[in-house]
Amino acid sequence: MHIPAFKDIEAAHLRINKYIHKTPVLTSNSVNQIVKSDLYFKCENFQKAGAFKYRGATNAVLSLSEEKANKGVATHSSGNFAAALALAAKTRNIKCYIVMPENAIPVKVNAVQGYGAEITYCEPTLESREQTLNKLVNENGAVFIHSYNCFDVICGQGTAVKELIEEISGLQYLLVPVGGGGILSGSAIAAKAMNPRITVIGVEPANADDAYRSFKSGKLIPSVNPNTIADGLLTSLGDLTFEIIKNNVNDIITVKEESIIEAMRIIWERMKIIVEPSSAVTLAAVIENRNIFENKKLGLVLTGGNVDLENLPFT
Amino acid sequence: MHIPAFKDIEAAHLRINKYIHKTPVLTSNSVNQIVKSDLYFKCENFQKAGAFKYRGATNAVLSLSEEKANKGVATHSSGNFAAALALAAKTRNIKCYIVMPENAIPVKVNAVQGYGAEITYCEPTLESREQTLNKLVNENGAVFIHSYNCFDVICGQGTAVKELIEEISGLQYLLVPVGGGGILSGSAIAAKAMNPRITVIGVEPANADDAYRSFKSGKLIPSVNPNTIADGLLTSLGDLTFEIIKNNVNDIITVKEESIIEAMRIIWERMKIIVEPSSAVTLAAVIENRNIFENKKLGLVLTGGNVDLENLPFT
Repeated sequence: MHIPAFKDIEAAHLRINKYIHKTPVLTSNSVNQIVKSDLYFKCENFQKAGAFKYRGATNAVLSLSEEKANKGVATHSSGNFAAALALAAKTRNIKCYIVMPENAIPVKVNAVQGYGAEITYCEPTLESREQTLNKLVNENGAVFIHSYNCFDVICGQGTAVKELIEEISGLQYLLVPVGGGGILSGSAIAAKAMNPRITVIGVEPANADDAYRSFKSGKLIPSVNPNTIADGLLTSLGDLTFEIIKNNVNDIITVKEESIIEAMRIIWERMKIIVEPSSAVTLAAVIENRNIFENKKLGLVLTGGNVDLENLPFT
Repeated sequence: MHIPAFKDIEAAHLRINKYIHKTPVLTSNSVNQIVKSDLYFKCENFQKAGAFKYRGATNAVLSLSEEKANKGVATHSSGNFAAALALAAKTRNIKCYIVMPENAIPVKVNAVQGYGAEITYCEPTLESREQTLNKLVNENGAVFIHSYNCFDVICGQGTAVKELIEEISGLQYLLVPVGGGGILSGSAIAAKAMNPRITVIGVEPANADDAYRSFKSGKLIPSVNPNTIADGLLTSLGDLTFEIIKNNVNDIITVKEESIIEAMRIIWERMKIIVEPSSAVTLAAVIENRNIFENKKLGLVLTGGNVDLENLPFT
């Protein structure tokens, strides 16, 4: 297994720098007063295509040889990685094939189409997604880019926390959402290399706690019927992300659905920015664990801002 | 009538600078592509208390003599000015009395209470608001601060566009929402002093078009039964704001309700920031008037971000 080192994240940063947004780090007195901590939010909701995924997708696309790139890239995704890969491919002017479940929400489908990718629909099961993708890749020779369990993708995702720690010194904790583990593993490598004393914590919905159970047991346990509003965190860890997380992450904690919604509302109302529920799990962890985080200096990654405005949890 | 000059806005800026947020100016490639113009958004939705009103309220509170300040300040408002004045008074550690209609929405009431102001409820009519306020002011000697038809308030509001033009050179148009005219009149004085060639346009909902009709007729025409989603723009011009607008604003244009909602959705979805409907009228004007604004460099003031998340227009 080829494990990324910090120098690989540095190389990725040089490679993607002129294509990505250097997103802002925001603070809010009002939120700090609520949780009695000093929070620094890395705002990847402002990243191109609306999520950190564009960093990893861009690094993967730019790392391909000319010959491979000319065949195009392909992935299966119902969410943010599909749009990110489509935009990254468009930027290099290569073909992009996306396998999406037929029940994917229209706003996600529109984004992928808007970036010019070719969509193939499949049944909404992992098996159907993989079969459909394999068929596509065999037919046209496109390079499969996995949305998280992939060296180049992880290196790209690590650049967000690299920017955060370059900008904000003295962070005691770094909190990162964990679904498949792409952003958590890349973030942990960057954070530990830049600041060995930082405590890196992955945060996961209790209703989709495969990373928590895998981390605690030391064995990769896949997600079974996860059911959470944080729709970006439904996926299971991969072998590569799990290996990195085991070696670089201090702990994984889980949060309740109602805390996720409360945290999302606080971010929307107090900070006036739009984040998706998956982004709110880290603030939810701070709310649920005052005893750990009070009076500490924390970095939190807001992973994305793609929400369906017609289907919000505020009622 | 004492009309503010640009030097009064400069003095206000020096006075309030350390209390306000210097809000960011945001651009969005995605929004620019939709309207084929070059837009610079001054983000007062990120201002303290969630709206530009904090600038004017702070300037008014800080301009009071010690003796007057010690009596406290008072206003009637169902919206953003109430919270802004309450926070400004709290910052100077003086009393604040707010008259609010008994049907004011809870989130606004909570904000005012959270800043420690004393609320007196009245019937939801202008007559009742003014009577209740007069009674209060007579009893306790507090200084009445009008939310827009007031020299010091207008000078404070003008500082937002002063910051915008200091940061972004070469703007051809400045678009500002108009309700009572506080932000439009302050903005116009600043813009014309700093860049005499800029075209300043006020934007108003067609369903609350008193400023448009007053501007076109040259006579102050009050608002009658305005009915718009842009709840910050229901008020009528005052004699002071009207006088400034007549002499400094190039035009006032009106926009349809559906354009306001479309513009608000574009800002939320593409820029990932929360603005209230009143903030979206300027982008609505750009959408409705492509012939005027295409390929131009525009400044737009996003006036505030206080929305009721349980009552959004996206359905």
